[in-house]
Amino acid sequence: MNTDEQAIRRLVAQWHSATAAGDVETVLGLMAEDVMFLVPGQPPMKGRSTFAKGLRGLLTSHRLESTSDIQEVYVSGDLGYCWSVLTVRITPLSGGNAVVRKGSALSILRKQANGEWVVVRDANMLSVAS
Amino acid sequence: MNTDEQAIRRLVAQWHSATAAGDVETVLGLMAEDVMFLVPGQPPMKGRSTFAKGLRGLLTSHRLESTSDIQEVYVSGDLGYCWSVLTVRITPLSGGNAVVRKGSALSILRKQANGEWVVVRDANMLSVAS
Repeated sequence: MNTDEQAIRRLVAQWHSATAAGDVETVLGLMAEDVMFLVPGQPPMKGRSTFAKGLRGLLTSHRLESTSDIQEVYVSGDLGYCWSVLTVRITPLSGGNAVVRKGSALSILRKQANGEWVVVRDANMLSVAS
Repeated sequence: MNTDEQAIRRLVAQWHSATAAGDVETVLGLMAEDVMFLVPGQPPMKGRSTFAKGLRGLLTSHRLESTSDIQEVYVSGDLGYCWSVLTVRITPLSGGNAVVRKGSALSILRKQANGEWVVVRDANMLSVAS
């Protein structure tokens, strides 16, 4: 595994740990400003600030725990992709049942001029598992 | 637009025209043997032969018409991606109403040793539009 692949795997791990910790700023640092999140049945969610607003809103009332089972990482030049099977558990802080969503995510990453990788496009195919 | 981007756009156009014509062999030539199709709520569809079986089965009883509104193509080295808004109309040959599915698709492409681009991973986020 080369250093770029290792960096992408570290990014994925950091994404999950920072999300679980409610550390939104760290999560935002892992994506490009013009990031785009694609999901079924909804228009694309465009930009880091839109993501930030959504995540901050969700974290006021819910706890997020997520894990990534990385299936594949591939890099060429300044472009890479990562295919993962994600599990996301969303638990209301007020009590009540958690919702678990599971499925594939296909993320496109770019290497910036400073050598850091960031997520630029993300296709999320999660569906409710329980 | 560079020649790699042009080649990827031609591939997308050819994919749709060959599918509409029922020319399965041409469509198969546009993907890698170990291609993987990711969709919500289902396990990944792995491999060209699995895709071929599914498409041939569908075409025995339906006509497929599809269009791609390409939003973005990006290439680095031997890796590229294409984000499109797809519309697929599936019409029973026996008559009856067509089903239209629409949504984003995020495709990963690889440049082969012979210089030809092929689809290697495809995230399909289409949902029923009518």
